Amino acid sequence: MSVRFAIIGAGVMGADHARIVAEDLPGAELRLICDASAPRARAVAEAHGAPHATTDPAAAIARDDIDAVIVASPDFTHAPLVLACIAAGKPVLCEKPLSQSPIECVQVMQAESDAGRSFVQLGFMRRYDRSYGEMRAALRAGTLGRALMMHNIHRNVEIPAADFTGAMAITNSAPHEFDVIRFVLDTDFTAISAWQARRSDSLVAPVLMVLETADGQLVNIEVNNNAAYGYDVRGELVGERGAISLIAPSYSRLDADLRQSTTHDPDWRPRYGEAYRRQDRAFLDFVRTGRFPAHGSDCWDGYAAAVVAEAGARALRQGTRVTVDMIEKPAFYAQRKEFAE
Amino acid sequence: MSVRFAIIGAGVMGADHARIVAEDLPGAELRLICDASAPRARAVAEAHGAPHATTDPAAAIARDDIDAVIVASPDFTHAPLVLACIAAGKPVLCEKPLSQSPIECVQVMQAESDAGRSFVQLGFMRRYDRSYGEMRAALRAGTLGRALMMHNIHRNVEIPAADFTGAMAITNSAPHEFDVIRFVLDTDFTAISAWQARRSDSLVAPVLMVLETADGQLVNIEVNNNAAYGYDVRGELVGERGAISLIAPSYSRLDADLRQSTTHDPDWRPRYGEAYRRQDRAFLDFVRTGRFPAHGSDCWDGYAAAVVAEAGARALRQGTRVTVDMIEKPAFYAQRKEFAE
Amino acid sequence: MSVRFAIIGAGVMGADHARIVAEDLPGAELRLICDASAPRARAVAEAHGAPHATTDPAAAIARDDIDAVIVASPDFTHAPLVLACIAAGKPVLCEKPLSQSPIECVQVMQAESDAGRSFVQLGFMRRYDRSYGEMRAALRAGTLGRALMMHNIHRNVEIPAADFTGAMAITNSAPHEFDVIRFVLDTDFTAISAWQARRSDSLVAPVLMVLETADGQLVNIEVNNNAAYGYDVRGELVGERGAISLIAPSYSRLDADLRQSTTHDPDWRPRYGEAYRRQDRAFLDFVRTGRFPAHGSDCWDGYAAAVVAEAGARALRQGTRVTVDMIEKPAFYAQRKEFAE
Amino acid sequence: MSVRFAIIGAGVMGADHARIVAEDLPGAELRLICDASAPRARAVAEAHGAPHATTDPAAAIARDDIDAVIVASPDFTHAPLVLACIAAGKPVLCEKPLSQSPIECVQVMQAESDAGRSFVQLGFMRRYDRSYGEMRAALRAGTLGRALMMHNIHRNVEIPAADFTGAMAITNSAPHEFDVIRFVLDTDFTAISAWQARRSDSLVAPVLMVLETADGQLVNIEVNNNAAYGYDVRGELVGERGAISLIAPSYSRLDADLRQSTTHDPDWRPRYGEAYRRQDRAFLDFVRTGRFPAHGSDCWDGYAAAVVAEAGARALRQGTRVTVDMIEKPAFYAQRKEFAE
Ligand SMILES: [Mg+2]
Ligand SMILES: [Mg+2]
Ligand SMILES: [Mg+2]
Ligand SMILES: [Mg+2]
Repeated sequence: MSVRFAIIGAGVMGADHARIVAEDLPGAELRLICDASAPRARAVAEAHGAPHATTDPAAAIARDDIDAVIVASPDFTHAPLVLACIAAGKPVLCEKPLSQSPIECVQVMQAESDAGRSFVQLGFMRRYDRSYGEMRAALRAGTLGRALMMHNIHRNVEIPAADFTGAMAITNSAPHEFDVIRFVLDTDFTAISAWQARRSDSLVAPVLMVLETADGQLVNIEVNNNAAYGYDVRGELVGERGAISLIAPSYSRLDADLRQSTTHDPDWRPRYGEAYRRQDRAFLDFVRTGRFPAHGSDCWDGYAAAVVAEAGARALRQGTRVTVDMIEKPAFYAQRKEFAE
Repeated sequence: MSVRFAIIGAGVMGADHARIVAEDLPGAELRLICDASAPRARAVAEAHGAPHATTDPAAAIARDDIDAVIVASPDFTHAPLVLACIAAGKPVLCEKPLSQSPIECVQVMQAESDAGRSFVQLGFMRRYDRSYGEMRAALRAGTLGRALMMHNIHRNVEIPAADFTGAMAITNSAPHEFDVIRFVLDTDFTAISAWQARRSDSLVAPVLMVLETADGQLVNIEVNNNAAYGYDVRGELVGERGAISLIAPSYSRLDADLRQSTTHDPDWRPRYGEAYRRQDRAFLDFVRTGRFPAHGSDCWDGYAAAVVAEAGARALRQGTRVTVDMIEKPAFYAQRKEFAE
Repeated sequence: MSVRFAIIGAGVMGADHARIVAEDLPGAELRLICDASAPRARAVAEAHGAPHATTDPAAAIARDDIDAVIVASPDFTHAPLVLACIAAGKPVLCEKPLSQSPIECVQVMQAESDAGRSFVQLGFMRRYDRSYGEMRAALRAGTLGRALMMHNIHRNVEIPAADFTGAMAITNSAPHEFDVIRFVLDTDFTAISAWQARRSDSLVAPVLMVLETADGQLVNIEVNNNAAYGYDVRGELVGERGAISLIAPSYSRLDADLRQSTTHDPDWRPRYGEAYRRQDRAFLDFVRTGRFPAHGSDCWDGYAAAVVAEAGARALRQGTRVTVDMIEKPAFYAQRKEFAE
Repeated sequence: MSVRFAIIGAGVMGADHARIVAEDLPGAELRLICDASAPRARAVAEAHGAPHATTDPAAAIARDDIDAVIVASPDFTHAPLVLACIAAGKPVLCEKPLSQSPIECVQVMQAESDAGRSFVQLGFMRRYDRSYGEMRAALRAGTLGRALMMHNIHRNVEIPAADFTGAMAITNSAPHEFDVIRFVLDTDFTAISAWQARRSDSLVAPVLMVLETADGQLVNIEVNNNAAYGYDVRGELVGERGAISLIAPSYSRLDADLRQSTTHDPDWRPRYGEAYRRQDRAFLDFVRTGRFPAHGSDCWDGYAAAVVAEAGARALRQGTRVTVDMIEKPAFYAQRKEFAE
């Protein structure tokens, strides 16, 4: 039988998931689109052949003909909607962040633990990107020796929002980095320092972070939301014997006008299109089997991202190194990891 | 309703198509696997959840519960099976070649023309490769100026068959090049010359071809079936103002042991996995709508590949330049192209 | 007339300068090699055709048949020898550092200022490297917009010295980075933070620094003295509109064994051979004309490198951000810069 | 003592050699510039500090204060001037071609053989290029296995001359390819075929050649004199186990305007500047020692290039494969090769 999906949130990400579920997920059926804006919900539903549209997320989650939920609504709604899914006993793929509040993340973990089985996968899709996958595999294969450092760069063409701040670069943009670095290194952050450069215009200037890990690694991250020249994510993992770098695939090389060039993407979708597809397939498999995906991001990972983001924003505000203090990992999540790998 | 597929031929390519239809083609249903070997048919059917397996292709094509056919059986069976599909009124995706015999290709064209509608798409999947797509788009956009030359390289790690010959490099391996070059340049070949290098061992040595086109372009092709170092397809299109080259995507770069390196694939599947997927989706859309895919390869293209391959094999044998003599393009195929673009 | 050179110090760097002066500096004559070890002085003198060898640097500097001096002796001797050259009225190219002590640098600046003309060029040869030159030119041409960040990586295969420390990575290895970054950005550092990763063996672990500049830029530097895989210097300058990265030139690309690769150098000499040659030629021109080279590194630059290195070592030791406090730029050096550009 | 140079021909190449001799060849002295145009001779002499200028090449060669000659005058004067140098007992570095007439090359070989010692080095400077050097070294080291094919591309931005022809692309531009391919493969050509593409404008269209060697290799060469986008020389050597490609060094990579790019040179000088320098140094060493440079190009190499160029022009004109018929290698040249390697 097909797995019947509801998607809550019909913005850019919600519409993308709708397209994937409708066109790229054999065994899935796109059944309902929910959005605060009824016309927007209807538009996405029609575009991708979903028979139902609504503005009521609680009702959507509760429907008998819905087996699984994707949450892509505004950030502050994520945790409440995820809790509703857990209460309804329905698996949910929640776009990052689970919550920007570590406490709220703890509440969700408690609910999931109490329920006694896994319901929540987070949309940290980079874990399904081939480049990060090869990086992680090289580390585990011993090719690089033990990990020592990781250099990370995240650049967008622009952030149109006039009120975007350096703190938001840490809390809104950097969590993808925080999560995938933890995924690659398989350790946790212990401290973070942060700086912001100075631009000559009113756009938000890039933020630079240095993080320390429990295993003695150093990690730096540039988040540059107005890089102008293209969408560009870079990463290098440096080990005791070698190093490995991400390559953003290009498909052709042009020789013209005294230059040889490849193109940069204007936004993240070409770069991570395949990762989203693989992530959503892993979620479908999770729904079908009940087994949490080996490489999936769970609530504990969402909590970890929230804690380090909060510490990073504080480090930037105070101009000091801030320690990252996490609760002990709940047994529910600790056990699953052992099971998963 | 789902489109119900039969796959004839359960070798490497047939199994690959079975996997795509079963796992990667929403709206398609893998219903039957047919192979001369009953155990092989059953094995592929079981691996991908097809409910039926058979050794009788005619019966497979005739079944009421089959809407579309993929032919991936030995080359000499392609044309007869395609004719059977046309007779049964069932769309067919036929692995290349349609036939190595131009005359047999003409017979299939006649049958399809007589049927009055399109049934046959050929498996020249490179037309769905992103790199060739960008090359073709750059030419059409005027970025390069008018096309002047195309340099093409096709390398396999090895051809295990002890009796593989230089002529077979032209008739079996090069047709993918012939077709995609015609697709990119949108013209036809008028002459071909061919040489074979000399190896120090008993493996088949690489073949080099130079082709001339009706529009005054020069094309060279290396087919190197025992390149040893990796599967490697390269291509460059040179225009009057610029040039564009294919890039085989890599996902990470390793620094180790005084070298910086990326990997080569051991065979063609990683390189063209996405192209196969997009080709099979285009075929599914063809089945549903009846409209031949804009970028699809049809029987005329199969005929063109067969004629140039035959001329190339003769050029190699005789050591002379051989003209490529094609019949006039049948109205059935000429009209569709105008319609399609 | 030829310019007659004495080289003080016959180690790796001294021998390299001897070779350049003897073989690659038309208009220069290699006249004398001085080293604390008489056999070593004689060996280098013979290898490169210098008629004289000595163990007495003061006498070497004083000789009537010496017009210019290159100092490549141990670090602690640099400042005293430079002072002797100034006193003798002889131009000197001094390998970095001028001194690790800022106070000693101030003393040399005082002596040079008092002498009323320029005598001292420092061996920060990266200013003559083509890659950094293109980076600096792109910034000045406005291609990148205003500078925002600079990412820098310095990796050696290994530091054999068992007693090499993280502090020494900052004071001995990083000064090349400090100087060339100031050269590219044309500004000064205001603060530095530093961390050291943890290795699993007894080798010195990499150090990571974050520096802030007077113009609001952020700069990070990795100094990794036991990178194992190769000598590798990387740098990226990020501006408000674009970014530019160094490329370490490679001359051929190998396809073999399922990999495509280029080579890494085992040490710095291939990478900077051309920069040393161009630096030494600029010094020869300085000797002949009396005009300090437009791109040359002077005692003020040596002082700046010493101050930031000292602050960096303190930042690493204390685990805190340390401000970089420099004296006001002496008029002697401030004026020349205005003249030079 | 310094080696005193006369340079005959004060065009682009002559001026370049004058600069190298004057500024980049320790132990050489630029003494005389000779050109049919007295003002041009004087201008180059003054620019590079040569004390003498003349319009009489015979007198220049005869002068007592001239030890060595560089010939960079128009092509048709090369052989007569080289003969004059041999007659005068003076070593000569002659720009390619020695002559476009194989018979004239034979006459020069006869004169040099009769003189009983080597006088003539040809300006096939690519033999001193690092990229070709690494390619040749990889072949000799066995890394690639036995050579099978070589793909070569030569592109200029433009050939302004309105009367440049496809035949001239073979006789004037391709000889650098012919020589360096023979140098890398260490074999001779046995046959050549040639085609010319068709342009839409009046510029000379690219020529494509396929050459066969005595050792069973296949070689193709594109000579594209109006490539528009940049000066670009490419080459790949394919062996039985691997392949190696030339890389034209770049020094920085720019990210701007949704593209990542490196630059192409507008002409050949940046690409081969270092090769010219190394070639001229090898010639200086030849003058001093009398030993012909191990990697130098001699009159036999000049003859080989002339024979294949003549055959290639005929192949293009006739549209047929033309065999390359060479005389037996004179003992004078055969013996030296054995000595040299
Ligand atoms: Mg996401
Ligand atoms: Mg195929
Ligand atoms: Mg130095
Ligand atoms: Mg030349």
